[in-house]
Amino acid sequence: LTRGSVLVTGGSGFIGHWTLEPLAQRGFDVHIAARSPSINGIGQFHYVNLLDANESEQLIVNLRPTHILHCAWDVTHGRFWNAPENLDWVVATLRLARAFASCKGRRFVGLGTCAEYDWSDDGARPRREDDLLRPTSLYGQAKLSTASVLQAFFSIEEISFAWGRMFHLFGPREAAGRLVASMARALIAGERAVCGAGHVVRDFMPVQQAGAALAMLLESNVEGPVNVATGRGTSIETIAHLLGEISGRPDLVAIGALPGAVATPSVMTADVSRLRQEVGFSNVIDLRQALMAAMQYWQVHESR
Amino acid sequence: LTRGSVLVTGGSGFIGHWTLEPLAQRGFDVHIAARSPSINGIGQFHYVNLLDANESEQLIVNLRPTHILHCAWDVTHGRFWNAPENLDWVVATLRLARAFASCKGRRFVGLGTCAEYDWSDDGARPRREDDLLRPTSLYGQAKLSTASVLQAFFSIEEISFAWGRMFHLFGPREAAGRLVASMARALIAGERAVCGAGHVVRDFMPVQQAGAALAMLLESNVEGPVNVATGRGTSIETIAHLLGEISGRPDLVAIGALPGAVATPSVMTADVSRLRQEVGFSNVIDLRQALMAAMQYWQVHESR
Repeated sequence: LTRGSVLVTGGSGFIGHWTLEPLAQRGFDVHIAARSPSINGIGQFHYVNLLDANESEQLIVNLRPTHILHCAWDVTHGRFWNAPENLDWVVATLRLARAFASCKGRRFVGLGTCAEYDWSDDGARPRREDDLLRPTSLYGQAKLSTASVLQAFFSIEEISFAWGRMFHLFGPREAAGRLVASMARALIAGERAVCGAGHVVRDFMPVQQAGAALAMLLESNVEGPVNVATGRGTSIETIAHLLGEISGRPDLVAIGALPGAVATPSVMTADVSRLRQEVGFSNVIDLRQALMAAMQYWQVHESR
Repeated sequence: LTRGSVLVTGGSGFIGHWTLEPLAQRGFDVHIAARSPSINGIGQFHYVNLLDANESEQLIVNLRPTHILHCAWDVTHGRFWNAPENLDWVVATLRLARAFASCKGRRFVGLGTCAEYDWSDDGARPRREDDLLRPTSLYGQAKLSTASVLQAFFSIEEISFAWGRMFHLFGPREAAGRLVASMARALIAGERAVCGAGHVVRDFMPVQQAGAALAMLLESNVEGPVNVATGRGTSIETIAHLLGEISGRPDLVAIGALPGAVATPSVMTADVSRLRQEVGFSNVIDLRQALMAAMQYWQVHESR
């Protein structure tokens, strides 16, 4: 029994990877477009540079997937917010959509970001999908503009389209410099584990759950933007203390010791009514357990 | 004396053509990227397909223009509103911007559209550049999304950027099926000249004036969106009657005889404060004279 064939772009990446097993379990014939195969062996691997117009189009023409889950984008930690490469990924995404439409694809799901929203109220309330959008970064603008064009285009082409607005993710295989990864690695090494302003609240979601939610979103026929998040805010302080506790080295945790990045807005949380009620994803998240899994990953994969 | 070198994409097109002489007069070294040379011989012609990534990039790298006036887009009359080719032009425009930035260009001016605005109030008042934007066509969305990404990108790259939001143009060399052209051609041929709902009001600007305004905008250092229009609304009825009068055949004019296209909103006019006060363009438009010029063009260029 197959629900159709899905091409997961960036299928070996941080988010894409975690969509593969849930997609396969749901009966999809899974294909991966990436620069390296998936580490769990799920899905048929297609080596392709999506920034190359010919390679990208040829893949779609040859494969003719019924579904695309487009996870690929350049999110190099520390520079992606305002990197010119964001333009290249707008271009690559629109080309992918054009090729998909010309091959009579059925459903396209892309990845958006909480950075599309207007946060000028400092995050006073959880964001709903129909709230005001006003990105302040090139990344946020590139994602929003891409979604707006795709929405208009796929509506005309009568292709089903959804846009998963991702909030803050953590978990195995995340970039080593990000909050949870950097603290976990420091704690494992017995070094001081620093983080920025502890009061800052984000909607932290384990990446495994985000992958499962995206697989459900792809299988559904829900249209338009859908927040992919937990609906619950957690302070950086809470994350830091949990990591200290799990590692048995709470003494190494140094909250507020990391200067630099201005943490605005204070709060970024999602209203997840659409994800729960329309997509049917119910996330029972044990934050401690998810942080333990992240910690275990770094214990296996790195000894500094 | 040269103010720099300007590459006019679509320089042999309906709008681009009319920017060439004013740009040359202002001291710019004018280059044209198009599929055919300009008909007035102004500007150095570069045969290039801007939809081809390599051709486009090579042109910028070789030419290294200080300015770009990007007029090229697919606006095939009768189909461009929701044509998939709009995506190709978003792609081509972002690639052009990338290449321009990597060659240290100074100023980029692109062409937007009144279709970017929210007209759901039926056009109750003239639109200002900071009014709500909510396109209902793929064309309008593609233009808006392109502008939003370019604005964020050029701000980071410290390249000066403006976006000329074009309203309704008419004049020599317009597509034969458009309002003024089709009526002028019918009247010249001694045939019934039909148009749609006569009460509909648009901000009709002679294309020669739009070209002059764009040349001034390019030379200025005004940033962001700027309406390119007259600031005055004219009903289709008025246009039709003037054409009938000019041709000496008012008896052939059949207002409201053209069914089909729903003319909403009733009114589309521009607030042109920015164009007048910041760019310094003062347009004294004699509508009758401009319509005569359009009529003369078709008398010379077509006998049906």
